[in-house]
Amino acid sequence: MEHGEPKERFSFELMEQDPAGARLGRIVTPRGKVDTPAFMPVGTKATVKAMTPEELESMGVEMILANTYHLYLRPGHGLIKDLGGLHRFMHWPRPILTDSGGFQVFSLAPLRKITEDGVSFRSHLDGSECYLSPERAVEVQEALGSDIIMPLDECPPSTADREYAKSSMELTLRWAKRSKESKTSLSQALFAIVQGGMYRELREESAIRSVEMGFDGYAIGGLSVGEEKELMYEMTSASTSKLPREKVRYLMGVGTPEDIIEASGMGVDIFDCVLPTRCARNGTLFTSRGKLVIKNSQYERDGAPVDEDCGCYSCRNYTRAYLRHLYMAGEILASRLNTIHNLYYYTSLMRRIRDSISQGGFAEFRKEFYALRS
Amino acid sequence: MEHGEPKERFSFELMEQDPAGARLGRIVTPRGKVDTPAFMPVGTKATVKAMTPEELESMGVEMILANTYHLYLRPGHGLIKDLGGLHRFMHWPRPILTDSGGFQVFSLAPLRKITEDGVSFRSHLDGSECYLSPERAVEVQEALGSDIIMPLDECPPSTADREYAKSSMELTLRWAKRSKESKTSLSQALFAIVQGGMYRELREESAIRSVEMGFDGYAIGGLSVGEEKELMYEMTSASTSKLPREKVRYLMGVGTPEDIIEASGMGVDIFDCVLPTRCARNGTLFTSRGKLVIKNSQYERDGAPVDEDCGCYSCRNYTRAYLRHLYMAGEILASRLNTIHNLYYYTSLMRRIRDSISQGGFAEFRKEFYALRS
Repeated sequence: MEHGEPKERFSFELMEQDPAGARLGRIVTPRGKVDTPAFMPVGTKATVKAMTPEELESMGVEMILANTYHLYLRPGHGLIKDLGGLHRFMHWPRPILTDSGGFQVFSLAPLRKITEDGVSFRSHLDGSECYLSPERAVEVQEALGSDIIMPLDECPPSTADREYAKSSMELTLRWAKRSKESKTSLSQALFAIVQGGMYRELREESAIRSVEMGFDGYAIGGLSVGEEKELMYEMTSASTSKLPREKVRYLMGVGTPEDIIEASGMGVDIFDCVLPTRCARNGTLFTSRGKLVIKNSQYERDGAPVDEDCGCYSCRNYTRAYLRHLYMAGEILASRLNTIHNLYYYTSLMRRIRDSISQGGFAEFRKEFYALRS
Repeated sequence: MEHGEPKERFSFELMEQDPAGARLGRIVTPRGKVDTPAFMPVGTKATVKAMTPEELESMGVEMILANTYHLYLRPGHGLIKDLGGLHRFMHWPRPILTDSGGFQVFSLAPLRKITEDGVSFRSHLDGSECYLSPERAVEVQEALGSDIIMPLDECPPSTADREYAKSSMELTLRWAKRSKESKTSLSQALFAIVQGGMYRELREESAIRSVEMGFDGYAIGGLSVGEEKELMYEMTSASTSKLPREKVRYLMGVGTPEDIIEASGMGVDIFDCVLPTRCARNGTLFTSRGKLVIKNSQYERDGAPVDEDCGCYSCRNYTRAYLRHLYMAGEILASRLNTIHNLYYYTSLMRRIRDSISQGGFAEFRKEFYALRS
């Protein structure tokens, strides 16, 4: 794995579009390509929890997400820059997308205060005063050296009324403009984030006006924050309906295997979510027949692998009984083997989605996926 | 890695003896060979904490230790036997030595009561009543299927008076005899354990009388339990002085790199200790120049590897600054990378000890080892 200087610019090629709406594409970044639809494991604090970069690569992970908020607070973007940037720091030579910190400021940090200029907040670690503006968020991500930068946005709660959702969307648009103006790096891509709460027409307007400004790609933010599934799908669809075919689309923080299949069908290209890694550490495993809770006593003497149909390292070498034992004993290896399994499940799911699109059979794949679980 | 049925019997070949007393040897077991002096990482609960078997193999680990006491309590030796034995259960196809549970009963379990027949105690997990006799300890280890079985022994505290140390040694000898008589498996080796507290003549007597009974190898128990280093070395030397050249010698639960070098010089062949794995999880790293405490602020921006002279995965790919960040953030990867480093340090140390013996330069190696740290 090399950590050389980026050579290529960011690009996205749309290769196929399934009649059902799902898209097959390829992102090219200075750090390598990403076949889409793609899932990014979350590497919050410069590590995808319990995994080495080599393990992620061996599963076919092509891009990960890291959290600007967390790295800004600890160890600090200046330190990471001084040590050669985030890729070198964490020994991951492939593409990294960093979020802007907006979502974490609104979900984790106490005493936040939003003004036109930016947001002040206190660190959830030590209570110290911090400040992020659109310019500062770009500066931090330029220091980190991620391949895709997200602009600072405001994430309204799912219960926001129309007026708040509208003014918040306007603020996010003004911040997107400032982000674009402040960016200095040529090798890093900048996306915009579509907001607009749970209002279809605001989502459409946010998408249209973001596209008018012109970004390298478009994210859909502020979803999966407590709303009903149907509403989330409606807002996703409203957003993608006004996004240009030729630009990559990223649904932030979503989601379950079902969410990913549904949103892929609406033309979303990239996803991230803590679900596979967090569930793994809590002993919940994804299988072709649904979720399996490894601590359940029914697995105590079960000599079968987690999923007979799975080819991951954990399923090839260990029984449910052993994984249950490790989990009950609080062993670190439990988190490792469970995370390997769940990320392999997600990367395999994305591969099957891509294969089905390339063969014009996405609708059929979707039907079979649900049939196995009923 | 295969889990076939054992073919060969246990044997030990003494290949070289350094003028200083250190021995180069080879253990052959049904599950493969072990070059000695060797260090066994501790896999307490059927996993060497934070490691996969493949990682251990890649470092050159040839044998591990597992704890009968812990596996007896959870998940139970019957379960492990039903699932094909400990090797298959934990996916480690190479030799395993199991202790008898004696040390844990005396150090962990509350309300223990020793009689001539055995020891009753309460589980430290749930307080349930448990019982181990010499016969039961052998039966449990036969169910686990380990390659080397240790007999139940009594470990007196380092402060035991002569009378207690003597009667405890006598009990351990009677239990060793019963262990030998009760063993049914031909493919598993059985060692005896030399006890005798901190009394040279009791140590010698224990060794002599154990050897008279005849075992596949001899362990030195009841050391590194709080006594002074010099006393530990004296007791080790007293024990090895009465052990036969042609049988393998195992110093239980020892120790630091220095301890291992000193005891190797006294003709000890195998070692086990939680030190490298436990220290790793606490952020203490072994290097050619001594210990390094990774959380220290001096490493915050340190772009060097933990040890410039180390070839382990962690040192080849990560900086002290990154390892410090992972440790401060409580990341699982910290335990992984630190454990890889420390076990690599220990396996490299053993390799250097073996190389020096084979070249007749153990005394010189020992001198150089200490010179680097002063």
